[in-house]
Amino acid sequence: MKVAIGYQVHNSENIALSLRQHLDNGYNFIVAPLVHPRVKKFVPYSDVFLGGSERSKLVVYIPKRDYNLKNNCSLIESEFNYANHIGVNTMLIDCPDNRVALKNLSDIINRQFVSSSEHFNEHQAPSVCIKVPLIPYKSYSSKWRDDEPDVDYDESWEKWNFIRMITQSHPKLFVALELNGDPIDPERIERWFGEPIVMALLSTSSFLTNSSKYPVLSKAYQQLIQKLNFKLAGNFSFVINGNNLHGHLKHYLQYINHLKSTDLFEDKISKFCLGYEDVLQIPLQPLKDNLDSLVYEVFETDDIKYQQYELAIYKAMKKIDKTDMYVILLFIPSFLSMINFLNCITNRFNSVAMVVGAGRGPLVEKALKAAEQSKKYVTIYAVEKNVNAIVTLDVLRDLRWGGNAGLSNGVVQIINEDMRYWAAPRKADLVISELLGSFGDNELSPECLDGIWNYVTKETINIPRSYSSYMCPVQSHKLYSQLLIDKKINNNPYDYGYVVHVRNAYLIDDPQKVFTFVHDDLTKPPNERDNSRAKTMTFRSKLKTVCHGFVGYFDCCLYDDIYLSIVPSTQNANMFSWFPIYFPFQVPFNVDPNDEIVIHLTRNVGNNSVWYEWTVQQPTPSKIHNLKGKHYSISLH
Amino acid sequence: MKVAIGYQVHNSENIALSLRQHLDNGYNFIVAPLVHPRVKKFVPYSDVFLGGSERSKLVVYIPKRDYNLKNNCSLIESEFNYANHIGVNTMLIDCPDNRVALKNLSDIINRQFVSSSEHFNEHQAPSVCIKVPLIPYKSYSSKWRDDEPDVDYDESWEKWNFIRMITQSHPKLFVALELNGDPIDPERIERWFGEPIVMALLSTSSFLTNSSKYPVLSKAYQQLIQKLNFKLAGNFSFVINGNNLHGHLKHYLQYINHLKSTDLFEDKISKFCLGYEDVLQIPLQPLKDNLDSLVYEVFETDDIKYQQYELAIYKAMKKIDKTDMYVILLFIPSFLSMINFLNCITNRFNSVAMVVGAGRGPLVEKALKAAEQSKKYVTIYAVEKNVNAIVTLDVLRDLRWGGNAGLSNGVVQIINEDMRYWAAPRKADLVISELLGSFGDNELSPECLDGIWNYVTKETINIPRSYSSYMCPVQSHKLYSQLLIDKKINNNPYDYGYVVHVRNAYLIDDPQKVFTFVHDDLTKPPNERDNSRAKTMTFRSKLKTVCHGFVGYFDCCLYDDIYLSIVPSTQNANMFSWFPIYFPFQVPFNVDPNDEIVIHLTRNVGNNSVWYEWTVQQPTPSKIHNLKGKHYSISLH
Repeated sequence: MKVAIGYQVHNSENIALSLRQHLDNGYNFIVAPLVHPRVKKFVPYSDVFLGGSERSKLVVYIPKRDYNLKNNCSLIESEFNYANHIGVNTMLIDCPDNRVALKNLSDIINRQFVSSSEHFNEHQAPSVCIKVPLIPYKSYSSKWRDDEPDVDYDESWEKWNFIRMITQSHPKLFVALELNGDPIDPERIERWFGEPIVMALLSTSSFLTNSSKYPVLSKAYQQLIQKLNFKLAGNFSFVINGNNLHGHLKHYLQYINHLKSTDLFEDKISKFCLGYEDVLQIPLQPLKDNLDSLVYEVFETDDIKYQQYELAIYKAMKKIDKTDMYVILLFIPSFLSMINFLNCITNRFNSVAMVVGAGRGPLVEKALKAAEQSKKYVTIYAVEKNVNAIVTLDVLRDLRWGGNAGLSNGVVQIINEDMRYWAAPRKADLVISELLGSFGDNELSPECLDGIWNYVTKETINIPRSYSSYMCPVQSHKLYSQLLIDKKINNNPYDYGYVVHVRNAYLIDDPQKVFTFVHDDLTKPPNERDNSRAKTMTFRSKLKTVCHGFVGYFDCCLYDDIYLSIVPSTQNANMFSWFPIYFPFQVPFNVDPNDEIVIHLTRNVGNNSVWYEWTVQQPTPSKIHNLKGKHYSISLH
Repeated sequence: MKVAIGYQVHNSENIALSLRQHLDNGYNFIVAPLVHPRVKKFVPYSDVFLGGSERSKLVVYIPKRDYNLKNNCSLIESEFNYANHIGVNTMLIDCPDNRVALKNLSDIINRQFVSSSEHFNEHQAPSVCIKVPLIPYKSYSSKWRDDEPDVDYDESWEKWNFIRMITQSHPKLFVALELNGDPIDPERIERWFGEPIVMALLSTSSFLTNSSKYPVLSKAYQQLIQKLNFKLAGNFSFVINGNNLHGHLKHYLQYINHLKSTDLFEDKISKFCLGYEDVLQIPLQPLKDNLDSLVYEVFETDDIKYQQYELAIYKAMKKIDKTDMYVILLFIPSFLSMINFLNCITNRFNSVAMVVGAGRGPLVEKALKAAEQSKKYVTIYAVEKNVNAIVTLDVLRDLRWGGNAGLSNGVVQIINEDMRYWAAPRKADLVISELLGSFGDNELSPECLDGIWNYVTKETINIPRSYSSYMCPVQSHKLYSQLLIDKKINNNPYDYGYVVHVRNAYLIDDPQKVFTFVHDDLTKPPNERDNSRAKTMTFRSKLKTVCHGFVGYFDCCLYDDIYLSIVPSTQNANMFSWFPIYFPFQVPFNVDPNDEIVIHLTRNVGNNSVWYEWTVQQPTPSKIHNLKGKHYSISLH
């Protein structure tokens, strides 16, 4: 169930009774300590009366303690062991105040994570949520005093970050964010959205009282929660804590449930993105591997993308001057000479469009539509190397595209060839392709289009005309921590790029343009071209942050003023064909405000493959990731 | 859905239409060829009209062909590629007749399996089901003739086995068994049940017609299907083929659905086994790892096991002679001397029971019950090393066992110690433990009980008194093939033993006793004992078969005539605490009828661990599996 709601019990003689009571009220779980808060020795409430299925509804709470004291360290270790024993999934730990206590707590957490992963037969260690306040407590109390508030708004985040760095961004480490007061500045909020928040803690005292005496949240809170829900894709819980101040504890739950039913919680993304939020995927290699029918099917349903293509093809067809010849037709006298003349102008007259990499034909459809709209007759060569897709193209040609005779606006020829090696019978007026990946050129569009040089002229229009990749450094515990899990199937997860629908991430700076490819003149043979690239980019952070790698995007000019983009500032709304690409850094690094982050990225072209290498130059030089394309390389064959 | 039902379409112009029609009739899927049977070139029905979700309801049928012809080999390769392309999950291939064709087909299948596993990003290759008849076709036709039937009843199995051996028992290779006539001899049927059958093919002509003109199956068929369903734990489908002979095609489906609702399909196993059929699990190591509360909870619900324990403890308590002293009480005159005497006999009088490895206390409960029934007063020491279980024991002692004062039948002391290192205050009359694993001694019961030598006497009764392991060679594609998958997490899957609720397996011979441990006298110190063992066992096969390893069991004398057993011939019904254990052979080998299978098994004891090594000596010597306990060893610490 998405966005569960729990209640935090501070002191209970009988966990089982307390749990059942709050479940009866409608809460989905409770947060409770394992030992009575005033007990110093470890004498936990027993699990005797807690049924197996009930235990997953218990989050164990560990109050703030000073982990400079050895006794407190043993106590929390006992709590961990016992929670593990009774099958508790989640621990909520109140973050200590001083640096040494933080260090000791981090060590304890780390040992839990490590010891559990050794026994692959055992229950997994519980998830650990670090409770931190959005607003530092000092600031909160200073409201009540008149002296100058000496508040460090980074304090919470720095404490969390310290524990995270020591546990090396462990995938079982999470944030429980206490929403304790009006939101801080937007940039700091954004930074929290790059952290793996799984709980939003709300005190009953944070609720206002409406005219019917029911608890409600202020607009500021509502907006914060809306953003939180979006960035976390609904993968978090609410925890209500504090005394009942509004008649009955279930009224808080009812209010949150009400919010959940409003458009505050509506996520308007396509169904093709749902469930893919922050999930790392290995990029497709359509040149090396034939795409499956289902993959084609999904991509074909991207209306936005194909509308743009149709518009671009229409504009390009309008531009192609051959069709102006229609008028000549009126002046031909005799029937025989007219036949000859017709043959002659049929050749000249037809514009020739080549759809290279036609797949199951969506661009063929769009080219036919554009021809109809622009009142042209077009001969379309649908060139496709995937023999399985050819089966579909053949059927569509017979059923929809008029077979050999064609339609009034054009005729389609199916060619089962790799576009790079096809001996084309004529030159193209228009070449249409959809060979772009998340990072623009990463599915080898430049190399494929270089290969068509012998069936184009200098006048041939290429759609897309040009494209550029973009990148920006990112803070995302969520993305990075998955690489630790991935390690089991991929030994070198840090030398790979991943396609991912990015949500739970903080962009440290605005994206900058990286590599650009322009296809105005395709007639140069491949050996005269150089598609290798290199660029050093300098970014600047606004806040203290951690850099976990960079995110890549692309934009593309199809023709004239028709664009496709997945760059956040210019992206086409509701287009879902491309998720961004994430390139990790093996060693994440801390960054101070105004620090420069310098990243060097190269695109390398070998005889058999193309690959990227990436390096951090500043603040601390890193290794060259994916050196020689040893791990992630895009095959040319 | 368990036990789906499909219909085989032999010739369809329009797969989509045909599929929808049969789904409307209630079938769950159809089996159909991709190309028209009379077409020689590969021109498949297109997927244009087949929606994404419909494709999983299509099983592609490949009719019998002669794979000596290159053309047929290319054809099936095209079919594989296209099926893969359109997202089909399952291929049904009719098994060819001659050896060369079989070899060629095996190569093609093998290449499919291998090529697909390289691209971990792609759709998985479809499962391949080899269609073979239960009764050879020759025998079938010979029924119609009077000449002596020259029938090889092993033919089908041998053809399947040939393909299986070449594909190395691949986890994606399955059997589609044609139930074509009355069942053959029971042993051959049993052998089929050791094969990964996923489809049972039934011709409409195999159905009888009942008085209402509806199709029904004979008793012989029904029993075969019942056994099939049990052995496969419901993980198979029916495929109906042939013309409609009974009014409407849906009547066959209705009849099978009727059977599914009868007790023919009822599986009376405990809910704790459900879903674990043929699932390999790493054995627990309760000595090294503390058990989880939920693990205790599940095992505590095994009523059969604890009934046997209660009975054994009752009989043992009856036997302990101290309690006969009750009668002396009558002759004591003065009050003071009586107090003294009481103290004195309390010490002598009390029988002392020690539950070593008490867990959360189920044997403590049983010992108290047995004391009550046998009218004894017992002091129970519950010795447990797991500090988390002690929490529960402490609570139970207060709540149920009368705390310090105890109950009328006894008092309980909780001792948080490893039984091997406990300095006991007195000697035990009775020691009760439950330290046995699937293979008897494999959870180190002998080593643990050796450790209690300094708090027992020669008269101390030990429950269990003795136990033995058993083993027999097994044919099970299902168990063995999982090791190929397992390889990703366990690099040496063939040097490991796995706990598994065995179903889809054929026992090649009856189990034989292997190692026995007797605990009549526990007073000898551990350094005078030797728990290492070695044995060479000779088994004999009845049929041609393949040996994939051996399965281990145990039985145990708790006391007197009270036994626990998981050996098939003597097992306690409805006891679920132990599944058998499976030891694989790295290289499965073919066995002829009456061949001897000689297996050497050793139990080795080192300073830090105990381990088994196993070797095939005949028919072909194997490597020593798990040499030096390098991969699977049971820790003593």
